[in-house]
Amino acid sequence: MTSTSVDYQKILNQINQEFIDQPRSGKVASYIPELAKVPSNKFGMHLYDLDGSNYCFGDSQERFSIQSISKVFTLSLAMKVMGDKLWNRVGVEPSGDPFNSLSQLENDSGIPRNPFINAGALVVADVLVSSFSNAKAALLTFLHEITGNPQIDFDPVVAASEQSKGYRNYAMVNYLKSFGNIENDVEDVLDFYFHQCSIAMSCQELANAFIIFANNGTTIGSEREFLTGRQVKRVNALMQTCGFYDEAGEFSFEVGLPGKSGVGGGIVAVHPDRFAVAVWSPPLNPKGNSALGMASLERLTTLTGFSIF
Amino acid sequence: MTSTSVDYQKILNQINQEFIDQPRSGKVASYIPELAKVPSNKFGMHLYDLDGSNYCFGDSQERFSIQSISKVFTLSLAMKVMGDKLWNRVGVEPSGDPFNSLSQLENDSGIPRNPFINAGALVVADVLVSSFSNAKAALLTFLHEITGNPQIDFDPVVAASEQSKGYRNYAMVNYLKSFGNIENDVEDVLDFYFHQCSIAMSCQELANAFIIFANNGTTIGSEREFLTGRQVKRVNALMQTCGFYDEAGEFSFEVGLPGKSGVGGGIVAVHPDRFAVAVWSPPLNPKGNSALGMASLERLTTLTGFSIF
Amino acid sequence: MTSTSVDYQKILNQINQEFIDQPRSGKVASYIPELAKVPSNKFGMHLYDLDGSNYCFGDSQERFSIQSISKVFTLSLAMKVMGDKLWNRVGVEPSGDPFNSLSQLENDSGIPRNPFINAGALVVADVLVSSFSNAKAALLTFLHEITGNPQIDFDPVVAASEQSKGYRNYAMVNYLKSFGNIENDVEDVLDFYFHQCSIAMSCQELANAFIIFANNGTTIGSEREFLTGRQVKRVNALMQTCGFYDEAGEFSFEVGLPGKSGVGGGIVAVHPDRFAVAVWSPPLNPKGNSALGMASLERLTTLTGFSIF
Amino acid sequence: MTSTSVDYQKILNQINQEFIDQPRSGKVASYIPELAKVPSNKFGMHLYDLDGSNYCFGDSQERFSIQSISKVFTLSLAMKVMGDKLWNRVGVEPSGDPFNSLSQLENDSGIPRNPFINAGALVVADVLVSSFSNAKAALLTFLHEITGNPQIDFDPVVAASEQSKGYRNYAMVNYLKSFGNIENDVEDVLDFYFHQCSIAMSCQELANAFIIFANNGTTIGSEREFLTGRQVKRVNALMQTCGFYDEAGEFSFEVGLPGKSGVGGGIVAVHPDRFAVAVWSPPLNPKGNSALGMASLERLTTLTGFSIF
Repeated sequence: MTSTSVDYQKILNQINQEFIDQPRSGKVASYIPELAKVPSNKFGMHLYDLDGSNYCFGDSQERFSIQSISKVFTLSLAMKVMGDKLWNRVGVEPSGDPFNSLSQLENDSGIPRNPFINAGALVVADVLVSSFSNAKAALLTFLHEITGNPQIDFDPVVAASEQSKGYRNYAMVNYLKSFGNIENDVEDVLDFYFHQCSIAMSCQELANAFIIFANNGTTIGSEREFLTGRQVKRVNALMQTCGFYDEAGEFSFEVGLPGKSGVGGGIVAVHPDRFAVAVWSPPLNPKGNSALGMASLERLTTLTGFSIF
Repeated sequence: MTSTSVDYQKILNQINQEFIDQPRSGKVASYIPELAKVPSNKFGMHLYDLDGSNYCFGDSQERFSIQSISKVFTLSLAMKVMGDKLWNRVGVEPSGDPFNSLSQLENDSGIPRNPFINAGALVVADVLVSSFSNAKAALLTFLHEITGNPQIDFDPVVAASEQSKGYRNYAMVNYLKSFGNIENDVEDVLDFYFHQCSIAMSCQELANAFIIFANNGTTIGSEREFLTGRQVKRVNALMQTCGFYDEAGEFSFEVGLPGKSGVGGGIVAVHPDRFAVAVWSPPLNPKGNSALGMASLERLTTLTGFSIF
Repeated sequence: MTSTSVDYQKILNQINQEFIDQPRSGKVASYIPELAKVPSNKFGMHLYDLDGSNYCFGDSQERFSIQSISKVFTLSLAMKVMGDKLWNRVGVEPSGDPFNSLSQLENDSGIPRNPFINAGALVVADVLVSSFSNAKAALLTFLHEITGNPQIDFDPVVAASEQSKGYRNYAMVNYLKSFGNIENDVEDVLDFYFHQCSIAMSCQELANAFIIFANNGTTIGSEREFLTGRQVKRVNALMQTCGFYDEAGEFSFEVGLPGKSGVGGGIVAVHPDRFAVAVWSPPLNPKGNSALGMASLERLTTLTGFSIF
Repeated sequence: MTSTSVDYQKILNQINQEFIDQPRSGKVASYIPELAKVPSNKFGMHLYDLDGSNYCFGDSQERFSIQSISKVFTLSLAMKVMGDKLWNRVGVEPSGDPFNSLSQLENDSGIPRNPFINAGALVVADVLVSSFSNAKAALLTFLHEITGNPQIDFDPVVAASEQSKGYRNYAMVNYLKSFGNIENDVEDVLDFYFHQCSIAMSCQELANAFIIFANNGTTIGSEREFLTGRQVKRVNALMQTCGFYDEAGEFSFEVGLPGKSGVGGGIVAVHPDRFAVAVWSPPLNPKGNSALGMASLERLTTLTGFSIF
């Protein structure tokens, strides 16, 4: 069975119809005031096929706060600049703990379990702040290049909103620094981190950006290689085992694709050698992942038969 | 690229040549006296293709103690008899803790994180003891049926050896029972568990048995369905995220296949829609997985290009 | 101010009057069926002065299950037979965790934090089982000698009741044994432990037995030394810091005396150089200590002015 | 036996002679550069009797950094201004964990176990910052009043030194604030905290200040009441159970007095109704308490016979 034998648009339409009128379960993230303002009924999906075709429905072109999905981009950039030395500073194993655990760090001498828990993402942020004279600009440039879209940008209101409530992240960076695993000033690392989380992208733009993880690190069209095949394999394996906080196992089973979620309600997933797909619905399930996003992706792999398992 | 375009035997031969004369790193498991007696230079591999072809080298027909690999079989049998109610008694998420942790149970009210940590496997054992008048016989029957090989059996010396040193497992079952998550007598559950771990199988027999996880739950030839497609997807997702203790992430990345290891030095992995493969080399790395087994499987997916990522 | 200037009987009468008609708060322990049968309105107190005088009220002569209070007796006996080597197998620090924690043991390599948490008491039990041909008889002999009362005995119904629900203690002993910190058979250690907890004593008998901790290790009248002054200091310090599970700090403050409680509703406390006092009221507060017992002892030290702080 | 029958000066002289020429075991605290500069052979002791007499030897008049001993002063001041409401924000139980644990806070919803672990002291600092327009001045005023010595002051070099390495305390305050248990700006709380730790006092001044805890809250001479008898009992009980990190049990036994240590090498202890005593020797044992200070106090209670047990 090849991709071309599947009518993606028909399947996306079916998913839209199945869910569009159903009451939304879950709660929109409220810990950041700006996120709480997003209408809970937003719903969109975009699938970008390796053959260059695009399929979508709903609010797939509206930008939202990508939040933790940004960790995949910063990890990619850090792997580019630091290579395998990165793994001296952050692990590659599931944490088995909620995303903001400090106690695990205590046992692990300040080495976060993986780059997708907050502690790990903060170490990655520190790596980027060390590597670039202007890390924020470098991240945007990376996104502009892999998407060919120069308009992707931070949302300064969201960044400021996160900073004002970011005590736990302040705690984490200081704690990591006490172990010597942060090189830069705490404020600089957090400024970068709050900005990366505030990036606003649409489902279309996210699917576009993630196609490199389905295509051995190379964009479609320009055929420019951003990551090696080995690096992509690493990112995908990490998304598979650690991309969904303490629901990674459930997502692995229900959806069967490597993916990453954010508390803005977005989820992106990739099928290596086939497609990248992004979905957006703000209400989150109790574990912090978009409830409707999970359900939509489950339907996608069921209806297409394309999971990796 | 289809399976038929790959010369598996040539690739297996290459793996054998690369490693056969290299000094073995790692240590043979010694906590059970019987396991410590196994020669450390044993090395074999067997790949069973969905098209029915078999490829192998070395000690691929010699039986060894499958240990934790047995947890995949007991889980499958428990899913068959109990269905989704099983997930009320055991979780599906990575634990982030070594395989014998008791502290996590304390926080989780006696519900083990997944069926592949010891606590979870003991709950699964309890389910089987409850479900069959003779659970040990039922497990062997299941193995005889999926392999077509009626000679697979327990090794009573290994079982007795494990029992004599099994204080931690005794602790675990009693602890689970204090939470009400064990129905049967502690001794009955442990007798079953020590026997399941003692099963002796060769790489050939393991690859043969695991083909159902690459083939939607159905054996090849007889075409008999033992698990539903959905159940197989669950088992594969669990192997992917939890099959290698606290090295699941590393295996996911290096090998990129769902798999399960045992302290006897065996590892089995499956590529859904392609093959099942088993490898055996007794010396274990510090995380308790066969060092050469991991390396061999990494070479297999690199040389074939067949990982799921 | 000396003891003789205080009218203990008048003070005890006042405590009795203050509380006797008040509704009992708290819950009688129910995890052991036999304990649940004890009437919740039982209330008695007995104070034994170093000058040999006795003061009491209520059900002070009725025997009840001393439960964890027995840990003070077994600790004393183990110190007698093993000396300071005992501290290689059990610590002397507060645990900060509820009395049945297994996770702390994991970090501490099987050395319990102190002899009054269950894990520590089980190690002490193991020491006694190793030290005497009949440890149960030796414990009774010790109690008979320090009290001069040969009728103190185990309650076999309570012991059997505890054993039938003792999964957590089975877990603990097996876990300790996996670290090599139990020398004897699990069953032998637990048989002793369940028996020590089942000992039935009255407030009068308990105050009588504990006078050695107020009198430098020596009984009154016979003047026989059972413990050295240094050993008594150790026991008192341990009672002060670890005698009340995770309420040791509150008891230290409210009562200001070294003491030990049991889930049977008994509490014994000592004022070094003055007296030993026992109180009994079955309903327990949420932390597992007799609610009315705590209140009565608080009144005692307030009305007498005799706390150690 | 009354205080007057004991020749304190003779006993102090004996302690001095026993230890003065012995090689110092332990290590001077080095995590703050300023502390590392203190000569390791400094040794002094001062005992202040309730009858107004003073006894001392060695470097008893030389000021040193009191560090965590300051927590007793800030706690006292917070109890004065906030009363029992303070216990809604900090507990009174031993923590069983090293002094800088973050994981325990995670389980306890941001309520530190007691006011002497760092987390608890930071909450107390926050209370004082909220309660006074100039908390630092208020703390000095309190010390000037209880000692009658207006020269006690912060050491700004030490305070700055602590701040420059204080990542773990920054982590802690931010973490507490994420639970809502810090009212003020993080910087304000830490500025106060680093200053309180930097206070320089001599053994003489410390014994002088602590006499209120041996005298029901009242100074000697002026007879001014700073704390109620009940408050003093609380402070003493807290020092007894929590004053020595994870060595509280050992100190309770060896010394048998309520006390508080600091990483500057100071220890202060009180015998209710008898005396306050301070000792100083910079090298710390592995648990962070002055090795020679512990030994000296052990000798004091042994030679005087004055412990509370």
